[in-house]
Amino acid sequence: MNFSSVNFENLTPVNFVKRSAAVYPDKAAVVNGSKIYSYRMFFLRINRLASALKKIGIGKGDKVAFIAPNIPPMLEAHFAVPMIGAVLVTINIRLSPGEVAFILKHSDARVCFVDNEFAGLVKPVLSDLPDVRKFINICDVDDGRPLEGQDYESFLETGSPAEMDIDIDSELDVAAINYTSGTTGEPKGVMYHHRGAYLNSLGDCLEMKLSSDSVYLWTLPMFHCNGWCFPWAVTAAGGVHVCLRKVEPGEIFALIERENVSHMCAAPVVLIAMANHPGAKEIKLKRTLEIATGGAPPSPTILGQMEAMGANVTHVYGLTEVYGPYTICAWQKEWNSLPSEKRAVLKSRQGVAYTVCQFLDVKDTNTMESVPRDGRTIGEVVMRGNVVMQGYYKDRAATSRAFDNGWFHSGDLAVVHPDNYIQIMDRQKDIIISGGENISTVEIENVLYRHPDVMEVAVVSMPHEKWGEVPKAFITPMPGTSPDAEEIIAFCRENLARFKAPKAVEFITLPKTSTGKIQKYILRKRAWNQES
Amino acid sequence: MNFSSVNFENLTPVNFVKRSAAVYPDKAAVVNGSKIYSYRMFFLRINRLASALKKIGIGKGDKVAFIAPNIPPMLEAHFAVPMIGAVLVTINIRLSPGEVAFILKHSDARVCFVDNEFAGLVKPVLSDLPDVRKFINICDVDDGRPLEGQDYESFLETGSPAEMDIDIDSELDVAAINYTSGTTGEPKGVMYHHRGAYLNSLGDCLEMKLSSDSVYLWTLPMFHCNGWCFPWAVTAAGGVHVCLRKVEPGEIFALIERENVSHMCAAPVVLIAMANHPGAKEIKLKRTLEIATGGAPPSPTILGQMEAMGANVTHVYGLTEVYGPYTICAWQKEWNSLPSEKRAVLKSRQGVAYTVCQFLDVKDTNTMESVPRDGRTIGEVVMRGNVVMQGYYKDRAATSRAFDNGWFHSGDLAVVHPDNYIQIMDRQKDIIISGGENISTVEIENVLYRHPDVMEVAVVSMPHEKWGEVPKAFITPMPGTSPDAEEIIAFCRENLARFKAPKAVEFITLPKTSTGKIQKYILRKRAWNQES
Repeated sequence: MNFSSVNFENLTPVNFVKRSAAVYPDKAAVVNGSKIYSYRMFFLRINRLASALKKIGIGKGDKVAFIAPNIPPMLEAHFAVPMIGAVLVTINIRLSPGEVAFILKHSDARVCFVDNEFAGLVKPVLSDLPDVRKFINICDVDDGRPLEGQDYESFLETGSPAEMDIDIDSELDVAAINYTSGTTGEPKGVMYHHRGAYLNSLGDCLEMKLSSDSVYLWTLPMFHCNGWCFPWAVTAAGGVHVCLRKVEPGEIFALIERENVSHMCAAPVVLIAMANHPGAKEIKLKRTLEIATGGAPPSPTILGQMEAMGANVTHVYGLTEVYGPYTICAWQKEWNSLPSEKRAVLKSRQGVAYTVCQFLDVKDTNTMESVPRDGRTIGEVVMRGNVVMQGYYKDRAATSRAFDNGWFHSGDLAVVHPDNYIQIMDRQKDIIISGGENISTVEIENVLYRHPDVMEVAVVSMPHEKWGEVPKAFITPMPGTSPDAEEIIAFCRENLARFKAPKAVEFITLPKTSTGKIQKYILRKRAWNQES
Repeated sequence: MNFSSVNFENLTPVNFVKRSAAVYPDKAAVVNGSKIYSYRMFFLRINRLASALKKIGIGKGDKVAFIAPNIPPMLEAHFAVPMIGAVLVTINIRLSPGEVAFILKHSDARVCFVDNEFAGLVKPVLSDLPDVRKFINICDVDDGRPLEGQDYESFLETGSPAEMDIDIDSELDVAAINYTSGTTGEPKGVMYHHRGAYLNSLGDCLEMKLSSDSVYLWTLPMFHCNGWCFPWAVTAAGGVHVCLRKVEPGEIFALIERENVSHMCAAPVVLIAMANHPGAKEIKLKRTLEIATGGAPPSPTILGQMEAMGANVTHVYGLTEVYGPYTICAWQKEWNSLPSEKRAVLKSRQGVAYTVCQFLDVKDTNTMESVPRDGRTIGEVVMRGNVVMQGYYKDRAATSRAFDNGWFHSGDLAVVHPDNYIQIMDRQKDIIISGGENISTVEIENVLYRHPDVMEVAVVSMPHEKWGEVPKAFITPMPGTSPDAEEIIAFCRENLARFKAPKAVEFITLPKTSTGKIQKYILRKRAWNQES
């Protein structure tokens, strides 16, 4: 099917901007501070970027790297790079220079665009990057050009604004590579193709009800799973992208107010920061703010706080390997009449597959049988279909391990409730086996998040003479509180089966990866090296 | 790409019901009078139908015909038939027995399901249909079994309710054939594949903002372009299908009220019938009713009347060859502040391509150049891409004529406005050439629809000694009015370029096809045989 004809055209998200530029030429596409690009202008800049890249010899299959926060060039890259059949590699700005160098080398990046604030991520390793032929400085905050080479706007000037054709051979061509930031091990390059990106973008539109009236605030990094495909989805809908360089609650609230924001995506930790911002309690949003949250289940407390402001939080779940969100806790009308506590419990589940994703199961991976829909039996979450990655770049062994038995293995352990909604119980490597019983660390964490003095928590195993291992909780207390370990344990015993309550509690600042994931392996090391 | 693997699955609309049955098992899927099927029950019946068909030897590529109004078996057929790789052929219940026989024979139908009210369409021609191996009586209004064979419910009983796999080789396999009901000539069988039906269904969801909260009233016949793909789209969204045997304004209003209907599709003539229903002026809908209308542009009068009730009318345009609607008059926010007269003019345009359709142009078909975006230059509407038919069944010559120069030729003439919205000026064969000037009959009709005494109108050419041909208007007056021809002509002269005003007006009941299209060729014959 890699041809184009009267009745066949490759599915590609690049087409979305062509349509929106034709339908909404004068409507705002991108807002960055006081700068506004209409869809006409946005599309012009995209064509310039694509054409400029072509002129320096970038073409099919070539990798183009971007190291930048959520600013217009990142959005432009999501269309311009795949438009010419090249492959977009966005790199996490929170990585170390060594990690950045690893990704630039591993991905075979030919060109690298670097926001000047983050030039420090490549400067120390430049000598290690002979294959990157060109660096471009993105000057968003100031005009500095710390790297030898052009600035972004001058580079655009070298390209033509004329509309370019999309130059791909097949909808299965790779459009982007996203490097995982696993909590351990070397990053792996997850390949997304045009078909998957197209379908998942439509999925975002459908599940999050995006329309031309939508105003999307860029709290979620675009370097993370291509911003869950929202650069394409919001553009498909003809909505407005509101850029955000830095996740800062004051700035978030100011933009929500000023731009009349309708949608955003963010991890619960961002919502926690918003809810704890001074004055947050007085905020009443004039327009309902639809928030998709993922990465961890939203706690009842945070759901309540966000709802009080006028936001509606929807829980989504996915992984880099499935283009970002794959499941959604789809709302059931009859839940409206439940008490908010009950609603929050239902909402915290990962839910059901996106309509475009569809193939989702929880299996006993020894037998590959689906687990019973009893809300108790734990199995591994597996996925299949068009919105599963093409594979890991240059790592066939890892790909075939991940694709064992005809399914993509998420490494997440879950139960399926009688209503077919899944609930993640733990990462496979985090589960605690205590006296032969499985204990979900996530279940304990969910209980602890209901405690008023707990801001963030991670539960890991620690050794125990009798039971082999038992849970230990590491807690960052809410500012201004000083909770007591005994009282915390008692609270867990009231709200959990007794054997699941942590046997120890420690108050610390939780160690995190550059993407904000808690590094449980560090905590586990600490728990196993200490006396219990 | 005709394989299924960890990261590839054929796009097929059949999957939508599998997902909705898992996510919304207890939610209403189909309402037919006092009968309600939940998604679980709907899916069960679909599996029974698929399995029963398999048991009688129906398999890949076999054609299964349905002759029925908008009742549950029609919805079930849209999933069960393509699920087993067979091809659904729904037949217009307003055709004559001869036409029905033509379609049953031409499509190679193996089984034919007939609603018992419409058995008269096949009974007289049974002897002419040796290749139809089995007839099934659908007993919706009563238990009569006028055709020899089982009734639908007993047939379902022969099938198993167990979930069946989707048995297709490729997403380009044909899922349905829809016979055109052109105003002249033999019907042609338009082939829809799974990929196109899947994408256009997502398009319906996006453009019409369908969600699990949507309640869709079946005013548009499912035998017409598979109900514009809404059997699949509403199911994808997890909405409610409200069945309707007969388009009758009283019944429509009663169902809208009782079922809290949010969406419907209908030709303007249905809206006119609704607006002229006794008591319509007092109606205030409690929930905004989103109406997609197509087949003809909605007049300002009807837009105003429907809006006064609490409906929002969106104009869509398409053809059988492009799975129903292909363009939508996408709303622009700044139009909100325009006077309603102005808004109506903008709304009456056919607009821009659906996001999933995308490839739309208006071309001078001699040069295949796009016409200038000046709102004046007329060209032919052409389309391309995944939502263009596979071709005409068993008619390669007609297919290649329609697919000339790499585009599907609609046969509709249009202009493109500076804002990229298209406006149909006429069918290619209807345009009037008067003294060398093109006159759009649609443009004149649009003006006449603003006249309070005009219920329906069709303008065709009539001979003229000096100008070659000139416009003549055939009008069905609004009940209770008796308009005057001179006054009507004067009204046109006030609102149109002088040379475009009709030179003659005749008041008659307009001749129509079985699908309600006005038969202009009959009027033209009449105009050319009369003295002018």
